[in-house]
Amino acid sequence: MKLSIERGALLKAVGQAQSVVERRNTIPILANVLIEAEGDTVRFRATDLDIEVVDDAPAKVERAGATTVSAVTLHEIVRKLPDGALVTLTDDGASGRMMVDAGRSNFSLATLPREDFPVMASSEYESNFSAKAPVLRRLFDKSKFAISTEETRYYLNGVYMHVADADGAQVLRCVATDGHRLARIDAPLPEGAANMPGVIVPRKTVGELRKLLDDDEAEIAVSVSETKVRFAAPGITLTSKVIDGTFPDYSRVIPSGNTRRLEVDAAEFAQAVDRVATVSSERSRAVKMALDEDRLVLSVNAPDSGAAEEELAVAYGDDALEIGFNAKYLLEIASQVDRENAVFLFNSAGDPTLMREGNDQTAVYVVMPMRV
Amino acid sequence: MKLSIERGALLKAVGQAQSVVERRNTIPILANVLIEAEGDTVRFRATDLDIEVVDDAPAKVERAGATTVSAVTLHEIVRKLPDGALVTLTDDGASGRMMVDAGRSNFSLATLPREDFPVMASSEYESNFSAKAPVLRRLFDKSKFAISTEETRYYLNGVYMHVADADGAQVLRCVATDGHRLARIDAPLPEGAANMPGVIVPRKTVGELRKLLDDDEAEIAVSVSETKVRFAAPGITLTSKVIDGTFPDYSRVIPSGNTRRLEVDAAEFAQAVDRVATVSSERSRAVKMALDEDRLVLSVNAPDSGAAEEELAVAYGDDALEIGFNAKYLLEIASQVDRENAVFLFNSAGDPTLMREGNDQTAVYVVMPMRV
Repeated sequence: MKLSIERGALLKAVGQAQSVVERRNTIPILANVLIEAEGDTVRFRATDLDIEVVDDAPAKVERAGATTVSAVTLHEIVRKLPDGALVTLTDDGASGRMMVDAGRSNFSLATLPREDFPVMASSEYESNFSAKAPVLRRLFDKSKFAISTEETRYYLNGVYMHVADADGAQVLRCVATDGHRLARIDAPLPEGAANMPGVIVPRKTVGELRKLLDDDEAEIAVSVSETKVRFAAPGITLTSKVIDGTFPDYSRVIPSGNTRRLEVDAAEFAQAVDRVATVSSERSRAVKMALDEDRLVLSVNAPDSGAAEEELAVAYGDDALEIGFNAKYLLEIASQVDRENAVFLFNSAGDPTLMREGNDQTAVYVVMPMRV
Repeated sequence: MKLSIERGALLKAVGQAQSVVERRNTIPILANVLIEAEGDTVRFRATDLDIEVVDDAPAKVERAGATTVSAVTLHEIVRKLPDGALVTLTDDGASGRMMVDAGRSNFSLATLPREDFPVMASSEYESNFSAKAPVLRRLFDKSKFAISTEETRYYLNGVYMHVADADGAQVLRCVATDGHRLARIDAPLPEGAANMPGVIVPRKTVGELRKLLDDDEAEIAVSVSETKVRFAAPGITLTSKVIDGTFPDYSRVIPSGNTRRLEVDAAEFAQAVDRVATVSSERSRAVKMALDEDRLVLSVNAPDSGAAEEELAVAYGDDALEIGFNAKYLLEIASQVDRENAVFLFNSAGDPTLMREGNDQTAVYVVMPMRV
């Protein structure tokens, strides 16, 4: 194998590869990136056995071939090369080394045979559709904060992507929850997605996927089966197993009868919550919201360290209410609001509270209260 | 006590205080900042029993008095208050609480009696002089990287500030070393410093001192005794115990007979060292320098992961030489060079190597080679 490639294109491809490989591996080849050169393309492939990322980059291929080298080391080298450098990768197939040459820098890296590299089996996908990058970005960005980190509830360790009914129309929906809070984000159903099986996209996949969605104009091809999901952006494909489990029936958690309505400037609200939470004990971080006519008083009482109170002018016209929340959860959902005021809908101090942005029903958050 | 103070001035004073207090304290009051209001000034004082920082800020004092509250909590609160806010601090002396009020935010913080706060005993200083902030900044910034972290060699855990002879003239000198590398930085002797006892300024003090030296125009009053050192910038005074030990005779380590002279662009050199070190095994990070007529080849050979080589055009006219160094040490001293080329002076592959910036004798670095 012998090929030349521009440093920028190489850095992008190897960057994505090294991010997928696990830092600590008992199987040495899983630390490597598979490099395959043919025609006028070089393909970089990396996997942790659950996720596979394949990146195609244009290259001047002098001699077709393939090999594998440490993804992290190659990435570090390329990162440190000067911008605009032309990089030559050479593998003679016999020495067990791949050469990396750029200007007056020469590296030789230990290789492992390409035959040993585990390539993910190709699958039949039941559903294929395409969506604009910003649509997918919104679905996952606004839901991922609620993903559970509890490994025992493995079926909550991802974002549940599925087709759902919203006001009689079908939508593409992402839901995540950890039992304390929940995010439900809807987008118009893309053509061809109607028969998509619901899948739980694992946390790590959501993180890697995010890197494919930066380009506002990019059209992302999505393929879904019962066991796998694939996202293909121009030049780069991410394939991932999905979590083998059943996502709970979240619809029962989303309150529909909450009538006490608070409307508040989200940024002001978040800053005030953050301030009063300063004195709370690390453990509980409980913030009390006391609501009365157009008036919200946020307060924290931590006997050891002190107390805090802040008043906000808000829109609230219902019966007085006192309700407590974990400050972290309030901050996280308030930071999802970017265009309009945050609207909270309460029932009682013991019931789940709903939050949304203005009257937008396509992004809905639920947060459980705590006793204060 | 009751006073009002502008949020910016309060943040600066409390920021310095919370940085001095230790995060984990067995003595609760050491986590607190002492606040004393009198006249038109409020004084903030914090200590870890080795270092004391005193910050004076202008304030509108309605009722003189003093109290202590958690430095970290007060800093967090003030940091989160909006820019330009006017903050009122009130302590009634009876409730065991201090109120912090700003706009619609109200906090009450647990206090501890001011009488329990350990104020550092005042001292007689043998030497008092003043120096411009940039002069002190250079002395400590260029030497501190070489401070040892080995606690068993506690007398190396700081910067040795003393008066020394350099080419027949007296200079103010800072030296730090960990046995592997050494930095020796000189400045013209300030008036009144000639009889200063040599003191070892602890690492933490060097870090805190740095925050007093940002203003290029500031005149810093320095006071030194056998046991303490004090740095006073306008409005803020840092007093610190010095390390009770004898700094080794470093002059024996600095080679004077090294004749093989290499001159190299410091930035190019650092980048090349960084690149070839990528393949080195984490542990040794050994980089070999092979010198021959106007040519430097940097190389690393790590049997497990690979090899790297890079050639640099340099100025070198002496006998060929091969010598090995720890890549980290080479990078650190190369990054001290900011104006001119780096000049290395070698003797043999087993002897300490000297580095300086061009022909500047006021900043000299020594680094021990390692076998490669």
